[in-house]
Amino acid sequence: MNINNLRDIVGNDWVITKRDQMESYLVDETAPAVRPKPAENVIVVKPANSQEISAILKLANKDKSPVFIRGGGTGLCAGAMPIIDSTVLSMERLDKVIEVDKDNLMVVVEAGVTLEKMLKAVEDAGLFFPPHPGDEGAQVGGLVACNAGGARAVKYGVIRNYVKGLEVILPNGEIVNLGGKLLKNNQGLDLLQLIIHSEGILGVISKVIFRLYPKVSSSGTMIITYDNRHNAMESVPMILRSGVMPLAIEYMDRTVIETSAEYLGMQWPATQGIAYLMVILTGANDDEVYLQAEQVSNICTECKSTDILIAERKDEQSAILKMRSEIYSAMKDKTADILDVTVPPNSVGVIMDRVDDIARYFDTTIPMYGHAGDGNFHPHLMNDLRDKGKVREVKREIYKEAIKLGGVITGEHGIGVIRISELDLCLETKPWELMRGIKNVFDPNNILNPGVAIL
Amino acid sequence: MNINNLRDIVGNDWVITKRDQMESYLVDETAPAVRPKPAENVIVVKPANSQEISAILKLANKDKSPVFIRGGGTGLCAGAMPIIDSTVLSMERLDKVIEVDKDNLMVVVEAGVTLEKMLKAVEDAGLFFPPHPGDEGAQVGGLVACNAGGARAVKYGVIRNYVKGLEVILPNGEIVNLGGKLLKNNQGLDLLQLIIHSEGILGVISKVIFRLYPKVSSSGTMIITYDNRHNAMESVPMILRSGVMPLAIEYMDRTVIETSAEYLGMQWPATQGIAYLMVILTGANDDEVYLQAEQVSNICTECKSTDILIAERKDEQSAILKMRSEIYSAMKDKTADILDVTVPPNSVGVIMDRVDDIARYFDTTIPMYGHAGDGNFHPHLMNDLRDKGKVREVKREIYKEAIKLGGVITGEHGIGVIRISELDLCLETKPWELMRGIKNVFDPNNILNPGVAIL
Repeated sequence: MNINNLRDIVGNDWVITKRDQMESYLVDETAPAVRPKPAENVIVVKPANSQEISAILKLANKDKSPVFIRGGGTGLCAGAMPIIDSTVLSMERLDKVIEVDKDNLMVVVEAGVTLEKMLKAVEDAGLFFPPHPGDEGAQVGGLVACNAGGARAVKYGVIRNYVKGLEVILPNGEIVNLGGKLLKNNQGLDLLQLIIHSEGILGVISKVIFRLYPKVSSSGTMIITYDNRHNAMESVPMILRSGVMPLAIEYMDRTVIETSAEYLGMQWPATQGIAYLMVILTGANDDEVYLQAEQVSNICTECKSTDILIAERKDEQSAILKMRSEIYSAMKDKTADILDVTVPPNSVGVIMDRVDDIARYFDTTIPMYGHAGDGNFHPHLMNDLRDKGKVREVKREIYKEAIKLGGVITGEHGIGVIRISELDLCLETKPWELMRGIKNVFDPNNILNPGVAIL
Repeated sequence: MNINNLRDIVGNDWVITKRDQMESYLVDETAPAVRPKPAENVIVVKPANSQEISAILKLANKDKSPVFIRGGGTGLCAGAMPIIDSTVLSMERLDKVIEVDKDNLMVVVEAGVTLEKMLKAVEDAGLFFPPHPGDEGAQVGGLVACNAGGARAVKYGVIRNYVKGLEVILPNGEIVNLGGKLLKNNQGLDLLQLIIHSEGILGVISKVIFRLYPKVSSSGTMIITYDNRHNAMESVPMILRSGVMPLAIEYMDRTVIETSAEYLGMQWPATQGIAYLMVILTGANDDEVYLQAEQVSNICTECKSTDILIAERKDEQSAILKMRSEIYSAMKDKTADILDVTVPPNSVGVIMDRVDDIARYFDTTIPMYGHAGDGNFHPHLMNDLRDKGKVREVKREIYKEAIKLGGVITGEHGIGVIRISELDLCLETKPWELMRGIKNVFDPNNILNPGVAIL
């Protein structure tokens, strides 16, 4: 796009053309071994508001010039990387928490607000936003665009379940409002649901209304240790069927969580076992949480757990969540690719066994952890596979096993750029044809995130 | 369509051409005063499975011949009525509960299964499907097509939140599978979410996978009586903010619920007050429910409730839910139109006051009840307004007030046919243009439910 036109819209200070000033806008958190190369000719533009975004998109649409939308850059599938010569539209200046509405239990935020900032505003108002998709540097627009999941999705679901209203700027510059502070809304086809997890290909999310919950009066985080993974995985469906509804049920190999603890200079509280479950319980009062913890303890003991720890203090619980959330950061340097396969919840144990078989066959180690309660887990393919040139082969073997079990190749990270070449494994072709048709309705000139999310 | 071709597909017995044998397929539960007239030339066809539906749609698509999809016929917006000469595709023979999967907490059903049949299968398996959209004669395909809501949506949301997988037959006859027994799924644009509440215009839903929950070990239904509506409505946001998360918070005028009780030959348990809340509480055990009931009682007492009853026996609770669910059936004969406006939850009291003002202005009575916890309620315009020719004027006044408060004209019933002519009130035009674009991607020959759901 014409740089002077962009400067006219946002002001001189907010257009970056020098490469050394834009390095941090060119990559995201995707593991370097599978990350594409950013394009050579990139402009970074930083609009202040929806009107400026609208003006930029009008210009881009007229020129048929590609635009990549940039949130917090915490994505894991290169979905925000400028992979062709283009303009990077950074959302960072749309960083206002517009309103925490205590009466309706909703928060209204600009899309560039970080998760950290929103969580703080919500907490300051005495309310609660349950999901925790990991890196708090993520921006809320990105959370919506990739329908983030994370650990605390068992009880109330993924980000999708919290999004009640959106302001979206279409590729032609039109600003549309979808939904509102509403818990029920059947007014036409649900475009809001379509924008959620559109990975930036249909429009620019500029404002979000999330549903909130009352602050939980009481919570507890359990760590349950096992001498083998099978016993741990066996406990999960039993917990889910028991009537207790935890906020989170996480599984992790001992080596994985200890790597994270060491990276953070922290101490993982459990000392026994090699396989761990982390269960977060919430309730209206301590009694409710105790009752739940007792039920969970009984189930896990029956499944041969070796030790059960319960953290009740807020700082202890935060420390445990922190160690869990930073696993990827801790392992990133040694990771060639992080997978995100999801299977029916009861098949997590089965697919993990198959991943072990695959690891043995390829003479490697594949550390595993994930959201056991959701059937979503993250095998890490390590750098030895990169060195042997086997990353793609191993990945495809794992994907095939997941699909055989009725699973998908991504549960929460998204397709982005790095999974486009594996979509041939997802057999039906018609859905992808429909997606391309929808993309064409929203973005006939294909200017928004071209090459991302759909074939 | 050519009747012989249809007979070749489904067999002679399953094609109805005689008008007197198809009367029940021509209308739904929409109030007669606002219901359109069914078309003169209609064929009813009853396929046995997805393959037959596929064959019928291929034929229809080739002939560019309209098809209206028929579920349980319990809809309230004429969304399933053949309003032009066409074929009615009845789903009634796809009535198999394929599987209740206890390990994954999912149920797999053909689309023609009734809510009643599915609830029974789920209960027999010791599991729980929380939402209860009212009439149990509804078919599950219809529940998904209209994203049904109902009373028990406060805690875990509307039908959308439960749908995890769909088999859909596209207008060209292609059968596609979306989602699966999965709690997380970010594989491409979410077509499954788009099909939910597509009111039959994008494809025929032939199979559904719903998420289930463990059977609640304990539940209680509270009836709280008030001497005026304001005190009742004031209690609702206070309950929602308290940390208690009821399955349902319903509001009803005394006259409304007594009409339903009388219609059913039952006895409404409360005798005091003129305005009622019904609160359903669930928990892992009786203690949990008692603790919640105590909190709710304290709040309601603070808001000047006059009496609080708690039903604990299952039959008592079912009776209360039955009386609530059948309100519309009881009032139908005297009802000219039932509205379905939804506003931000905290504005329900405000909009109800405005409806009262409008009623006074038009010298009528507008009985009200609804899902107070969801901001969704149902004013009934009675036959006196029909006789005065004022139904549309009153309706539009109420819609305008709802929209001013950030609301929508339908929260759970849908657009169907009867709300098409009021879409001018929903100001933005671009979303409707996008919806038409999407319809065209799925159904370029406009054969499925033409004239329904979008302008």
